[in-house]
Amino acid sequence: MIMSDKAEKDGRENLGVTVTRKQDFSAWYLDVVRKGGFKDQRTPVKGFDVILPWGYSVWEKIVGIYDSLLKKNGVQNCYFPMLIPHSFIEKEKEHFSGFEAETADVTEVGGEKLSEKLAIRPTSETIIYHMFSMWIRSYRDLPFRINQWCNIVRWDTKITKPFIRDREFLWSEVHTAHATREDAMKQMDDYIGICDRFHEELAIAALVLKRTEHDKFPGAEFSIAYDTLVQDGRVFQGPGGHFLGQNFSKPFGITFMDEDRKKEHVYQTCLGMTTRQIGGIIMQHGDDRGAVLPPAVAPVQAVIIPIIFKGKEKEVLESAKKVKSGLEKAGVGVALDERDYSAGFKYNDWELKGVPLRIEIGPKDVAAGEVVLVKRNDGKKTKIKIGNVTKVREVLDDIQKEMHEGSKKRLRENIRDVKSMTELKASVKKGGFSRAGWCGSKECEDWVKDQTGASIRGTLYGKTEKPFAPCVYCGKPAKSVVYIAKAY
Amino acid sequence: MIMSDKAEKDGRENLGVTVTRKQDFSAWYLDVVRKGGFKDQRTPVKGFDVILPWGYSVWEKIVGIYDSLLKKNGVQNCYFPMLIPHSFIEKEKEHFSGFEAETADVTEVGGEKLSEKLAIRPTSETIIYHMFSMWIRSYRDLPFRINQWCNIVRWDTKITKPFIRDREFLWSEVHTAHATREDAMKQMDDYIGICDRFHEELAIAALVLKRTEHDKFPGAEFSIAYDTLVQDGRVFQGPGGHFLGQNFSKPFGITFMDEDRKKEHVYQTCLGMTTRQIGGIIMQHGDDRGAVLPPAVAPVQAVIIPIIFKGKEKEVLESAKKVKSGLEKAGVGVALDERDYSAGFKYNDWELKGVPLRIEIGPKDVAAGEVVLVKRNDGKKTKIKIGNVTKVREVLDDIQKEMHEGSKKRLRENIRDVKSMTELKASVKKGGFSRAGWCGSKECEDWVKDQTGASIRGTLYGKTEKPFAPCVYCGKPAKSVVYIAKAY
Repeated sequence: MIMSDKAEKDGRENLGVTVTRKQDFSAWYLDVVRKGGFKDQRTPVKGFDVILPWGYSVWEKIVGIYDSLLKKNGVQNCYFPMLIPHSFIEKEKEHFSGFEAETADVTEVGGEKLSEKLAIRPTSETIIYHMFSMWIRSYRDLPFRINQWCNIVRWDTKITKPFIRDREFLWSEVHTAHATREDAMKQMDDYIGICDRFHEELAIAALVLKRTEHDKFPGAEFSIAYDTLVQDGRVFQGPGGHFLGQNFSKPFGITFMDEDRKKEHVYQTCLGMTTRQIGGIIMQHGDDRGAVLPPAVAPVQAVIIPIIFKGKEKEVLESAKKVKSGLEKAGVGVALDERDYSAGFKYNDWELKGVPLRIEIGPKDVAAGEVVLVKRNDGKKTKIKIGNVTKVREVLDDIQKEMHEGSKKRLRENIRDVKSMTELKASVKKGGFSRAGWCGSKECEDWVKDQTGASIRGTLYGKTEKPFAPCVYCGKPAKSVVYIAKAY
Repeated sequence: MIMSDKAEKDGRENLGVTVTRKQDFSAWYLDVVRKGGFKDQRTPVKGFDVILPWGYSVWEKIVGIYDSLLKKNGVQNCYFPMLIPHSFIEKEKEHFSGFEAETADVTEVGGEKLSEKLAIRPTSETIIYHMFSMWIRSYRDLPFRINQWCNIVRWDTKITKPFIRDREFLWSEVHTAHATREDAMKQMDDYIGICDRFHEELAIAALVLKRTEHDKFPGAEFSIAYDTLVQDGRVFQGPGGHFLGQNFSKPFGITFMDEDRKKEHVYQTCLGMTTRQIGGIIMQHGDDRGAVLPPAVAPVQAVIIPIIFKGKEKEVLESAKKVKSGLEKAGVGVALDERDYSAGFKYNDWELKGVPLRIEIGPKDVAAGEVVLVKRNDGKKTKIKIGNVTKVREVLDDIQKEMHEGSKKRLRENIRDVKSMTELKASVKKGGFSRAGWCGSKECEDWVKDQTGASIRGTLYGKTEKPFAPCVYCGKPAKSVVYIAKAY
């Protein structure tokens, strides 16, 4: 309610989003984030924002879905220390160099200097793998899978953007250890099963791309990530998984006794998913009136707005309450907005927040024993009988499907094959993914970035695509088909 | 599984708790915390431990119960920045001086000095109330109730003790704002409703005490806390609530327009509950074999141990699986331990972890269509028919009640009235609470602490008890009846 109250004070005309996506996608996004009650950036330290109640309740939905998928995969939750001595991070050099510049350090307590700088975790591989080295002893301990939900600090020096580029964010980090390379590779497939299912709930279509050598996670053998296309044609990266091989188990000494009592180093993987995802949902599904949440992650799936006329308040409210309790019993996330505001104000407010379904009920509807359903995603209205809970659930299912179809369509229609730099430049301007041949050299990768502003996001993971053209930059034979796009 | 596997390697005799509560309560506690899989302290920075999977799953149960009680009270979850500029904390002087010495500061990022020291939150009043001053405008915004689940750093210089005295811990902090003193006082009663219900689930009896002036939360008008008695006769403090009055709303400028369009400062309260509670449960209910968890907070309420003899494995396991799925359907938290260990090893392991009910099933039981239930709290065995889910639930309910009754009895039997320092000293030696008259002076409070090692924990909140004797130290007329005890 916070932001709406504020908005009302600023004058009614200010309540809604003040700019369209076409006019200025970035300004539109900031407007929705703030006025929709997702985040407040008016904090003393840049990039350290407040996640507002509505935004946080979306996060709780996301966490609920994702956490239960992890648990089904045998992942156990724990909590590891936030402060990590520098000597730990420095154990794996490639890893450390990847985070050095953006690591915040605690150097004093109560004004007294500490003997060693302590880093606030920019990620937790090093402290977790230190513990793994003590915990893992035998092949019987493997596979070993843990996760933690925690806050992370990465002091990005670039301009911050709420959810998308924060200095502090919340995340899940899964870390696993395996007896063999094959079993660790199987874990990468498990991640895909988890993230595919997760994206269905988000109603978002994605490409699973294997990043280039230059773009992989510091210390990994290879990295994969969920790349999705948002409405301005740019790529938004969702969850990312990393195959670490033995790159960490060797410096950290994570060994186990195999069945023949031979000591071996474990193979490892990790997976991350962050509050960034909230921004991804807004950019993916929002419209000029605000956010549009898929029913599966909407804290309120249906909001009932009583339309009050003097003298008829009582019967309308009574009916509204009946509708509410009926839906609650059926497991629908429902709210009844009884606030002392006009119906129009309430419509705007819940549209801003992205609630998938509005249920209007006025004196005429009560008389007719009906309510009006209004779908957030397309504005379509249906009249249904009061108490027809099945119909409400059907409409929510429809919304979820329609939103997912819309996302799939956007992705499908925005992948273009290009065979030359001229074609690539034209395609990048249009937005979306450009599909091209690549010789595999870092040089060509850099030139593509330099000349188009778009980067090579990688190759399809788990599917070998035959090059249909030579390297888009140098013209030498292509080793792979890559996807090129501008990204957040 | 981590600790048990480790324990097995150390030799079977080392698996269980190696010391009794009577021999050394503190060593017993550390043993249970570590071997039961609650926490691992072998981390690089003292007081920054790992909460292990089993310990964390208990925390998830606690969070689930507590969070739903908060939500019913209209509390909304958010997330606030972890780093707070010093200028913010210093706005309320009494508050700041209470946390100054134990605050960890970030002074560098990527090796470069920051222009202002940033404190890692030792609590979040200051950043939250800064936001309140922007969010709260009108009486219509009130009461306003928010909560955050987050990590906290307090660099206690004393000896650390896992869960009980950590430098980093997880907690819930509720913050509310109200239009009137009366409404804020009503919120204190809401806290009591929430915490009473919470303690029922924990099966723990508590006194709700109002702390002395000297012992209240820095910046509060007064503080209340849940004091419980653990098995060594010391007091363990659970959740604490604080009435802040206008002490923060004035320096932070949190004002609202009342119904007559007059600007007023809000009245505030806050409430905290932390991972400390896990330690409280262990100390409250544990026995010489390990932890004993009340069914309401046990991640596994019943564990099925198949007793395998060669040639009979299949039928025993099949029956065990049937028992499991029957209990799952009935909503019982159940696990089937199919690990390749002896039944005896498994008994010890789950006893250490504190699972309330063990279900044994062997070939003879299968033949008789029965299983054996073994209660963790008293070791009593019952045979029941396979599939008698109702009986399992009844036994779990009994355990919850018996544990709560046990806790109530301990509290009831360990409150002693004392009328002189001689009586007080003798009573403190016995452990538990001593009830005495107090004149209200800081001097007498300090002398009591100095001469007995026990402190004045406060007066019963919400109940005026007539003094039955003069001040236990100075002999002047007593202003109140206080509860004196040694505390963790």
